[in-house]
Amino acid sequence: MKFSYITHLHCPKCQKEYRYDQIQQLCECGSPLLVDYDLQELKKHWTPSSLAGRGHDLWRYHELLPVVDPDNIVTLGEGMTPLLRMDRIGATMGIDHLWMKDEGIIPTGSFKARGAAVGVSKAKELGVSELAMPTNGNAGAAWALYAARAGIKASIVMPIEAPVITRNECAISGANLNLVNGLISDAGKIVAQAVRDHGLFDASTLKEPYRIEGKKTMGLEIAEQLNWKVPDVILYPTGGGVGIIGIYKALKELAELGWISDKLPRLVAVQAAGCAPIVKAWEERKSSSEFWENSETAAFGINVPKALGDFLVLEAIYATDGCAIAIDDASLLQEQADIARLEGAFICPEGAATFSAARRLRESGWIKAGETVIALNTGSGIKYPETVQVEVPTLEPGERMIRE
Amino acid sequence: MKFSYITHLHCPKCQKEYRYDQIQQLCECGSPLLVDYDLQELKKHWTPSSLAGRGHDLWRYHELLPVVDPDNIVTLGEGMTPLLRMDRIGATMGIDHLWMKDEGIIPTGSFKARGAAVGVSKAKELGVSELAMPTNGNAGAAWALYAARAGIKASIVMPIEAPVITRNECAISGANLNLVNGLISDAGKIVAQAVRDHGLFDASTLKEPYRIEGKKTMGLEIAEQLNWKVPDVILYPTGGGVGIIGIYKALKELAELGWISDKLPRLVAVQAAGCAPIVKAWEERKSSSEFWENSETAAFGINVPKALGDFLVLEAIYATDGCAIAIDDASLLQEQADIARLEGAFICPEGAATFSAARRLRESGWIKAGETVIALNTGSGIKYPETVQVEVPTLEPGERMIRE
Repeated sequence: MKFSYITHLHCPKCQKEYRYDQIQQLCECGSPLLVDYDLQELKKHWTPSSLAGRGHDLWRYHELLPVVDPDNIVTLGEGMTPLLRMDRIGATMGIDHLWMKDEGIIPTGSFKARGAAVGVSKAKELGVSELAMPTNGNAGAAWALYAARAGIKASIVMPIEAPVITRNECAISGANLNLVNGLISDAGKIVAQAVRDHGLFDASTLKEPYRIEGKKTMGLEIAEQLNWKVPDVILYPTGGGVGIIGIYKALKELAELGWISDKLPRLVAVQAAGCAPIVKAWEERKSSSEFWENSETAAFGINVPKALGDFLVLEAIYATDGCAIAIDDASLLQEQADIARLEGAFICPEGAATFSAARRLRESGWIKAGETVIALNTGSGIKYPETVQVEVPTLEPGERMIRE
Repeated sequence: MKFSYITHLHCPKCQKEYRYDQIQQLCECGSPLLVDYDLQELKKHWTPSSLAGRGHDLWRYHELLPVVDPDNIVTLGEGMTPLLRMDRIGATMGIDHLWMKDEGIIPTGSFKARGAAVGVSKAKELGVSELAMPTNGNAGAAWALYAARAGIKASIVMPIEAPVITRNECAISGANLNLVNGLISDAGKIVAQAVRDHGLFDASTLKEPYRIEGKKTMGLEIAEQLNWKVPDVILYPTGGGVGIIGIYKALKELAELGWISDKLPRLVAVQAAGCAPIVKAWEERKSSSEFWENSETAAFGINVPKALGDFLVLEAIYATDGCAIAIDDASLLQEQADIARLEGAFICPEGAATFSAARRLRESGWIKAGETVIALNTGSGIKYPETVQVEVPTLEPGERMIRE
């Protein structure tokens, strides 16, 4: 048994192959690269029962991850996040089997930890000493902290409007942090220039091939947590789209291994009404998206006007008979509050959008009665204090409690 | 096999016994109550291998928890937090086997989730419809959210200086929140009055007997994660002290079950120099503490001038040959920054204090070379943005990255 069954990387556009034992970024043709494994060989040795007794983190799936030597693993205990029943909010939308995969319960408080753990581990394995990346906040925080743990220097550029706490995370990690008075696309240009100027490793979304493998573990975990019976629908808040690409990849790999059936869940890309390039492309049945001008939403993590992997997101939707749907800010913020009040979960606005989307899709009949639905919450609400209005009385010592 | 082996509650001061199927608060004599289990019966049926295949949360230990009917469990997926090697920061203090139990990776971002999960579940089982509690922030947030999930109404009173994010958590849960221009002791008096005025369930620390059982699971998990070999030293940030009381109780129960040896880890109560009543009592070899006047510390969660369970904390220290130590704010904030920079973990100031304490105790020789040491981090740093100074450049789109 090998620790990893990685064989090579390939370009999903031009099919060119690349080695996994050298640093890779984009394909020559400009496309992101995907990682391949020897699934036929792995199938002979590896069954669901192989997982018994393994650690409760994403590294339990190390055969399907790209790190070759376990000594290179950089971990903060990420993965195996809770899959929670959401019966009370589900009842308000007529969905009897509604679950939340809660990616708030993870180091750095967001699902970005998965991509960072696997991406930084592989960067360490390949000898990277310094990386740079643009971010809407959470990814930069995660990569900065995991890079610190790995002893890798990190330079991060984020919009000035990104969640403030993510600045603190970058700063305390010792990373080099710059803010930009613009969007993540502006941050991306600054990083690209710095990469050229200084020969840094470019850790931008999908410009390095391994974060997908980290995100993929959400799909592996959902399948394992449902005892290898996949749900009917998975809803995912989609900005850069790596999560939905990763989940789709995970499910295809599990089907090829024979651990789940070939009938995959319908994948739903959920976007904000103020930034919905994937939804527009899907509605027009296109295979790639156009830059969304003047994008704006309270769900900051999905404010991505044009994703490098848009064609992979759209492929995942088309191939699974999924769909794409846009949610306005007022609806997702209301949903966020209702979930806290009914379910006791303080989730992020991006995650709340997936519940709004489930509600709409049940109303329209796209989600049918009796179907099992999973909403992905990508982060903890405690990173988004500005989404909550707090107006409460202040007492002096000795005064009586004011009770509504 | 029963789901829980609870038999009754008893008073550790006057030994009076109480039933577990009725709502209980303090003993008639004013002492907190402790929960008892039929360990001799349980021992016949339950071994470490019984845990194989169970869920990765604290309910895997349900035989040693007070909830009798699994239908009453109110869960957000709490427990089985990571136990992480801390080699790089350990090297700076001459401790070769330093680990962190990271309670930031849990619903609501703090270890308070454990007490709330078990306390609220048992309150639900006993038919409680409304609870009230004072808090330094994190406990109130956790109880408010778990109560929301249980459909129980919550009234929370916290100091105006408590971490701001915990106000948001209470508010979005739909709880009734009051701030007080004072300390947690002032909040406690307001709650006590409201309990008298309105006949509410008093969920104040140790005035309800079940949060200890939730906190206890930290001790159970540490033992399981080290394969039932306990460490030499466990350091705990001590405010109300429920965590250290719970860990001590867990270790005694495991020893009685024969799952670990009788030689328990030395337990260390870590306090802030600005609020160190347990340290003072321990230095004077007393069995209880005195109210600490004008307490103040950046580690807000351990700003507890007088703990109701102080005598139980001191018993745990004396019985295990442990100690108590106070850390000044400058040291613990420096430690917090060093841990982020070297280990990639953004922990809370209370947690950082335990690392400072380990450093001091190694310097003094109290921790010996080669010993295995566990520092408890009680919460995520993302709940404490004010502990980080952020001074970073802001660029306009098209400008070049400023690189240190």
